[in-house]
Parts: sequence; structure tokens; C-alpha cells
Amino acid sequence: MNKKQTNETNIIVLGGLGEVGKNMYCIMHKDAIVIIDAGVSFPESELMGIDYVLPDFTFLKENEDKIKALLITHGHEDHIGGIPFLLQSINIPAIYAPNHAKELIAVKLQDKNIRYDNLFVYTEDTKLKFKDIEIEFFRTTHSIPDSHGISIKTPDGRIVTTGDYKFDLTPIGPMADLYKMAKLGEEGVDILIGDSTNALNEGFSNSESVVDETLNEMFDKCKTNRIIIATFASNIYRVKHIFETCYKHNRKICVFGRSMENNINISMKGGYLEHKELLISPEEANNLKPNEVTILCTGSQGEPLAALSRISNGTHKQIKLRPDDVVIFSSSAIPGNALSISKTINKLCLKGVKVYTNNVLADLHTSGHANEEEIKLMIRLFKPKYLMPFHGDYRMLKKQANIGINCGIPKENTFILKNGDTLSLKNHIITKGKNMSGADIYVDGNRIGEIGGAVLKDRKIMANDGILVVIINIDMKKHELLIKPNITTRGFILVNENEELIHKIEKKAEITIKTALQDPRTTFASLKTDITETLYPFINNITGRKPIILPIILDIKR
Amino acid sequence: MNKKQTNETNIIVLGGLGEVGKNMYCIMHKDAIVIIDAGVSFPESELMGIDYVLPDFTFLKENEDKIKALLITHGHEDHIGGIPFLLQSINIPAIYAPNHAKELIAVKLQDKNIRYDNLFVYTEDTKLKFKDIEIEFFRTTHSIPDSHGISIKTPDGRIVTTGDYKFDLTPIGPMADLYKMAKLGEEGVDILIGDSTNALNEGFSNSESVVDETLNEMFDKCKTNRIIIATFASNIYRVKHIFETCYKHNRKICVFGRSMENNINISMKGGYLEHKELLISPEEANNLKPNEVTILCTGSQGEPLAALSRISNGTHKQIKLRPDDVVIFSSSAIPGNALSISKTINKLCLKGVKVYTNNVLADLHTSGHANEEEIKLMIRLFKPKYLMPFHGDYRMLKKQANIGINCGIPKENTFILKNGDTLSLKNHIITKGKNMSGADIYVDGNRIGEIGGAVLKDRKIMANDGILVVIINIDMKKHELLIKPNITTRGFILVNENEELIHKIEKKAEITIKTALQDPRTTFASLKTDITETLYPFINNITGRKPIILPIILDIKR
Repeated sequence: MNKKQTNETNIIVLGGLGEVGKNMYCIMHKDAIVIIDAGVSFPESELMGIDYVLPDFTFLKENEDKIKALLITHGHEDHIGGIPFLLQSINIPAIYAPNHAKELIAVKLQDKNIRYDNLFVYTEDTKLKFKDIEIEFFRTTHSIPDSHGISIKTPDGRIVTTGDYKFDLTPIGPMADLYKMAKLGEEGVDILIGDSTNALNEGFSNSESVVDETLNEMFDKCKTNRIIIATFASNIYRVKHIFETCYKHNRKICVFGRSMENNINISMKGGYLEHKELLISPEEANNLKPNEVTILCTGSQGEPLAALSRISNGTHKQIKLRPDDVVIFSSSAIPGNALSISKTINKLCLKGVKVYTNNVLADLHTSGHANEEEIKLMIRLFKPKYLMPFHGDYRMLKKQANIGINCGIPKENTFILKNGDTLSLKNHIITKGKNMSGADIYVDGNRIGEIGGAVLKDRKIMANDGILVVIINIDMKKHELLIKPNITTRGFILVNENEELIHKIEKKAEITIKTALQDPRTTFASLKTDITETLYPFINNITGRKPIILPIILDIKR
Repeated sequence: MNKKQTNETNIIVLGGLGEVGKNMYCIMHKDAIVIIDAGVSFPESELMGIDYVLPDFTFLKENEDKIKALLITHGHEDHIGGIPFLLQSINIPAIYAPNHAKELIAVKLQDKNIRYDNLFVYTEDTKLKFKDIEIEFFRTTHSIPDSHGISIKTPDGRIVTTGDYKFDLTPIGPMADLYKMAKLGEEGVDILIGDSTNALNEGFSNSESVVDETLNEMFDKCKTNRIIIATFASNIYRVKHIFETCYKHNRKICVFGRSMENNINISMKGGYLEHKELLISPEEANNLKPNEVTILCTGSQGEPLAALSRISNGTHKQIKLRPDDVVIFSSSAIPGNALSISKTINKLCLKGVKVYTNNVLADLHTSGHANEEEIKLMIRLFKPKYLMPFHGDYRMLKKQANIGINCGIPKENTFILKNGDTLSLKNHIITKGKNMSGADIYVDGNRIGEIGGAVLKDRKIMANDGILVVIINIDMKKHELLIKPNITTRGFILVNENEELIHKIEKKAEITIKTALQDPRTTFASLKTDITETLYPFINNITGRKPIILPIILDIKR
């Protein structure tokens, strides 16, 4: 498909399938491409030292001249986090984002010193046209303000993508535009690309308003206590309600955690949050009575450096816990964080404070994603001919496909794809196209896509067993060892406390080298192999460890 | 307290408080010590490369002459896993264990080539006496056969420890001995040391028999499918039921996973498991119809090398998945394993097989530990004056203390301790004693307690950023650099693809060294500091990474 113009419409998925993260896909019609979202995902623990994971941009690089715009559905990291990296490698003529996402993107670009002048805001009424591709937006509800779905119409048919959504029928912000969804559905939708994150959950998710009630009750109950609330910084509706509850209960608010401060600033600027007068400094907070203060902070996932973790450790400079504090986790555990959250809770309990989590009070948090019945509702509104479950691992995608089948979509019209897969839409008929690279690209420090398996493998070995460097000075002409081998280690054993062992290894290396040098065929390479092959089992026998053995041979007379 | 004889009874806790793992405590009266359990715990991910964590044996080392026996409550790793390490460093005159635990210990010692002739079996009728310390045992129910609690009586009073327990009133194995517990309670118990693992769970836990019914229903429902079941290898009651269900449904059993095979062998030998005739080889299993086979395997926690993970990856040599297979997780997720389990399930679903977990069917697993109401029952049976919650993190211990208070134990008679804490029991009065070391001792390969913070810190840095070795050959007398600095890296960047960067760093190092050598005061140490202090920011600026910088200076003319 590369470089070739087609007379069909193609959907090219770069990320977001088989995973929750780095959402990104493209719609191409003739010589025009629009990109939907540009997310990052956060590396799993086995990706040692990797900072972010990006989709593979190769397709975009090869078709750079066709790219018309990047459209953003909402401001979560798995939808906007890839933008700085994308802009550094590919020319994107314009980015269109809803207002809140636009502000978040602007801060992100500023932080990375990237100047970009074509960042535009769209509203639900905006209509865009790129060659034959016509774009409309529709408002949805999600756990961040200004989330939208997108309708993409080409001469071949209409593609609708839901973005991330739930149906919150008593939302804190504006309602989803059910009429516009239904109207697009009535006009005819060929394929729906739908959020599958919570497809495995039955029923209908709780409204954000239910959480409001619970939080209100908590504030009533803890009238005399200082209240500390941890939640997701990007969940502005939750933050908004916390502000309003504090206002009602005559409490000032002290905010801790950089991402929480950023999000609150952006949201105040955008008019999503009121009651700026409630914000106070840590000094003021410490001078007020417990029942006059709420501390709002990051750290709901037990992240070691986040505000709540430092508060629980007693290492926070500005806030010390008091025994009658109440800590509320208005959040749920993201898979993989259960242990770190549990550690934080234990530390809080040790300090004598009361802790409330979603496990104790079920209504302290609700997700921003659609459960089964909401997915059905979305399908019933759009009445698509085809369904492509998106935004989820295989199980979630499969479940949404089944939900679609239950709603009358023929099984053969549901597509469970993987990253790199493509669909071809031609005259309202969809078929599977060829697969391209849907690889994971690693960002390691400032380097994108350079760190691969070999480096990660070394990191893994060194993480568990350390490294042992053997320095060998030889005169290769004379085949002579000039000084005794010298061993240095890191992450293996403490050299000071193991001098005898180090000497043993040095002796073993010396004998190996001397023996090898007696053979006139010995080369640098064969000497290295001799050393590693001899020392590896020798060291493993004594220590039970398998460090990297790194022989460095210097031929000083060369 | 060390070396000093006392006229009181001391309870010295070495491990098991503030954690679920490495349970171990001692009772000392005058010159006699009995030890209860000797567990290990498994390291958290930040303890890079550490294999096991042990309690600090210092107290035992210093009082080795007083040790009379080690008593084992049951055969789980967090109660017996420390035995090989203990025997290697301290003389233990005798170990008493119930039959099943004894067999597990024997295999463990054999695996480590440790010869030990004083491993004895106790039954619920055994009575032991070591000087003035009188020991009795009582049968409990838990997720492994032959679990017992222990009564320890000295002239100062009676200490009862529950071991790990639940009250399973329709158990697969024998009932707990309620009468003996009540009788000991009636005779008078000064302090109860009680399992807190599931204290946070309300109500009464499900009986193992409920799981039986669910599994039976699953077998009825999946009449035509091959069934693959993953469960905890040590949970012999579960395994027993699976065997009986297979017998009833005319299925043969093929076992995969070394620990599962070991546990089944030991349990058959001990008479805990019947139907040996059901066991078949992988070849036989592959030749039978799907409805004639059950595969029983390890890997319920998504452990990367366990049988089920290899089956799900398609890398298992003997078993390939078929689309109509059914996989049952008869287990629950141990905190921290959610992600790896989810990965395994996704891979299984990708292969088209149906997966049932405890999340889907609540009765596919039940825990072996007591919920709140069971803890109350234990307290009501023993009617202790004092309560020491054990076997749990702080929140769990605190909860059991509160349960005790609700059952009428005065708050000041409940002791929430930490590892290393001691209690003094004198004429039926208990007071808190002094604190000793309750440190975590790391086992790293063959080395016990040698790997400390510095080595782990290096491992952590190398895990994320790698290492950069700078080899410098100088003539220190002449203050002269003999050859250009040479750089080798591991886990940092790929040298082949970054030759230019490596040259830049070498050049930077060269200039730094030459400049330093012009100063006559330059020493080996100052040169090393100069190199690291110059290269560290230089490299971080270019790459965004902070590898360990290891300068190795060779003075070949020395």
C-alpha cells in the first residue's frame, strides 16, 4: 500500500489493539490521510529502563506528503502522549483537539521545547474537510472533559470512532449528544470503531454522580478530621466535585503533586473548574484546623515518588500525618499496582490514620469506560454494518465483538484486529487488507527506537546478577601477558568483603590466558571466548550467580 | 537478653509480622528454646536478583546451646522454606513436623544435599517436653494436609499458636479438633498467636466443598472438551478433589510442572491422594479423546516458566492447545501477579480456548485462611487473656486486634508487634520486652546475608541505564596517557549503531585525563572522580540516560 494511491478508503491501525495504550490509527482515502490520536503506553516491568512505548510511525513516514491532520479525541496520555515524538520525526500540517486536550498538548509541547503553530481547537459543531474526507465530531462522556467521538466520511462510506466513552446519564459535565449519534446512525454508518476497555464488565457503569454522593457522605461523616484525597490528576470531573464538596463544607484545598497542580491550572483556565479562592498554600493548610482543610494529591496508585507516598513515608516536607487524618482513595487499582497501593495503605495505617478505598466503599470511584450495556447502547445508536472493537487487549476486543453479534451484527462483519492490520472500505463493503508493521517502538532517554533486544537482555542480566569486568593487558606479538588480570565488578558481590573470591577468579583468568597464549593460533576473539567460557561456570559454581562477564583485552604494544 | 538466663518465658518474633512470609518465632524459658516454623519469603521486584528473604538468625546463633527443637505447623514455604539455610548455619537438635510437612522437608533437604537425621513426625496425639516447656498439638484445617496449631506450656503460662488455619466445617480432609481447642481454652490460655492473613475479609470463608461442587458442575458442562486445570501445587485437597472428579467423569490425568509432580508424588506416598491409576504420560494424553483427559498443571499465577504459561505460549513441547480446550484457573491472584495472569489468559483466549477464573465463577477457589468470623470463633474457643495477631501486614494485624477487642479482650492486652519484637510472660502476666534485630536477610545465589544495599543499588541503575566502562592506560610516574581511552558498554546503547557517540565520549575522556595529568597533584582517585564527574552530565545531556560510569585506570609501568 505504501506510496501507492488507492481508490478505496483504508483504515490503518498503528496502536491500541491487543493492549490498553498508545492508541493511534489512520484513515486514508486517495492521497489524503487523517490520523486519529497519537498515544504512548507505559512500559511493562520487563522493559527495563524504557521510558515510553510508541507505535511504529513507518507508514506515516513513507506517506508523509499525504498527511492532512491529526485529530485528537480527548486529552489522556494514551491518546496524546505520542505527539511530541511524532512531531519530531514527521511533518504534521495541523492538529485538531477539543479545548481541554489542546491545553494539555500545549503544556506538553512547551515542556519539551517544541514549537508548533498549527494546534487548533475543535468543538462539537466543527466540520472539517480534507480532500474527499469529511469530518464531524460528537460529544461523549468520559473521565476527562471534552471527550469526543469522530465521524469520518469518504465517498466509500462512513467510519465512526467512539473515542473513550461511557454513558453517564447524570454526568458532572455536559451530556453526550445522543441525538447527533442517533442521527449519524440514521444517515448510515458503515463501521463503528469502539472502546472495549470495560467490555468484560456486565451491566451499566456507575454515574460519576454516585461517587459525588459517596464523597459527600464521607465529608459529613468526617466532620472533625483533616481529609486527604488521592485521585487521578486528569479526572477533572472528580476534582471538580471535590472542589464543590469542599466549598459546601467550608474547607480550603491544598494541592500536592505536579500533575495535579498542572491539571487544576489548565482546568481553571479553561473554565472547567471553579472556586479558585479555595486553594491555599501548605503553610496556610498547616495553620488551619483539621476540619477546615482538604488535601488533594497524586499517588492513588502508590507511585513511589508521588505526593501521597511521600506523605505516608513521612518524607513529605510540607505535610505530616496526624493520627486523626482520614485518607480517601477516590480511584481504583490499575492492574499491576496492587502491591504498591497496599504498601502505601499499610504505611498510612501504621501512622494511625483511617483509610477508605474503593474496596471498602464501592462508590468511591467509577471508571470512565463503557460496560457491556453501554456498548450495546452505542451500537444501537449508530447501527453500524461492521464493527471493529478497539482499545483493549484480546479478551476485551473479543467480548465487544460478541456484544456486537448479540446486537445483530453478522459475525463475519466483526473485525478483531491486531496492531499493523488494515481494513479496506470500498463502496460500503469492508474487507481485511494486508498487515503492516505494528511494532512497539521504545523510547529510552532521548533515543527513539534504538534500544532493542540485546541492550534490554544485558540490562536484565545485570539487574539480577551484575557484571564482572576482566581487564587483560597482553603483548599480542610476543603472545605474552603483561600484567596479571584485573577484575572489577558492579552489582555482583561486594569486592571489599570478597577479596579471596576475586583473587581466585583473577588466578583462574590468568591461567586461562597463559594457557591460551601458548597456542600460536590464539586471537583476540578466541581469547575472549576462552575467558568467558572458563569463568562463567567457575563463578556460577561458587556463587550461584551468572553475571555478565566482560573481558577487555588491551594490546598496549600495538 | 542474649546469653542471659531468664526466669520468665519470652516470645521472640524473628519473622512474619508486617508481612505475609518468612514466619518464625521462638519461645524461651530459662535455658531452653523451641522454635516455631522457619519460613522464607519471596523478594519483591525491587530486590533485584535476590532469590529468597530470610529472618535474621542472630538471636539463635547467640543462643545456639539452648535450642531444643524446631516445631513445624505445616508444609508451606513461608513456614518450612528457611530450614535448609537454618541448618547450614545453626545446630538444630531436632525438627518435629506433621507427616506431610516432614515429607516436603525431606525432599527439600535432599535437593540441597543436606543430610539431617533428626527429622521426626508428630501427630495430634504427640506430647513433647523440653526442660520445663511442654508441647501439645491440635489439628486445624488449611489448604495443605496435616496443618496443626501448637500449645506451649511453661511454668509462666500457656501460649497457643494457631498456625495457618481456616474453619472448614465440611473439609475434604479431617475436621479441625474443636474439642481439643475448647479444652485447652477451658484449662486456660494466656496468649493466642493467631493467623491474620484474611482478617480484612468479612464473614466466614467458603468451604473447600463448595469449590468441589463448582468443579463438578464445570466437568458436567464441559463433557466434550479437554479440560486443563491450573491450581496451587501445594493445595493437595484441591488436587485430591480434581482426581476424584476425574475418576467420576472417566478422565485420565496428565500432570505438568515439577512442583505439581513433586507434591502429587509425596501425597500419594503419604496416602493423601488416591487413584494413581488415573495418571498418564503426555504421549498417552495426546492419543486420547478430549473428553477422556484432564491436564493438571502449575502456572495459575502466570509464572513465565510454569507449565500453563508455556502451553499458552505454544512453547510447551508435549501439549498443544486445541480450540475446544477449556482452561480452569482454580486459584486466586496473589497480589502483584494480576498482570502476568492477565497476559496468560489473553494468550489462551487468542488460541480460541474458553477460560474460567475465580472472577467469572466465584466458587472456583477458596482461601485457606480464616475470615473475620472464623477468627472470632478461634478466639472464643481459646478464650485467651492476651492476643498477638501474627502472619500478616500491619492492616491485617490491626484488624485481628480489633476483632479480639470485639470479643472482649482488653485493648491493652492486644499486641501489634513487628519483627524482632519480644514479649515477656511471667506468672501469667505479659509485658512487652526489648526489641532485637528483625532484619531481612537476603539469599543471593549461594550467598546468605552478603548482598546489601550497595550491590542492589548498582543492579538497579544497570537495570535501567546500563554501564559504561572507560579503560585508561597511564604511566603515573611520567603523568602520561599511554593510549587513547577505550570505552565498552553493556545495557546502555548498541555500540555498533552509535560509533560516533562512543568516539565523542572517548574524546571527552581523553581531554579530561590529559588536562588532569598536567596537574602534578592528580592521583588515581582524583582522576577517577574527574572522569565520572565530566562524563556523567556529558552523557546524560546527549542520551537522557545515567549509566554507571566505571573508570578503570591501569598503570602498566608500575
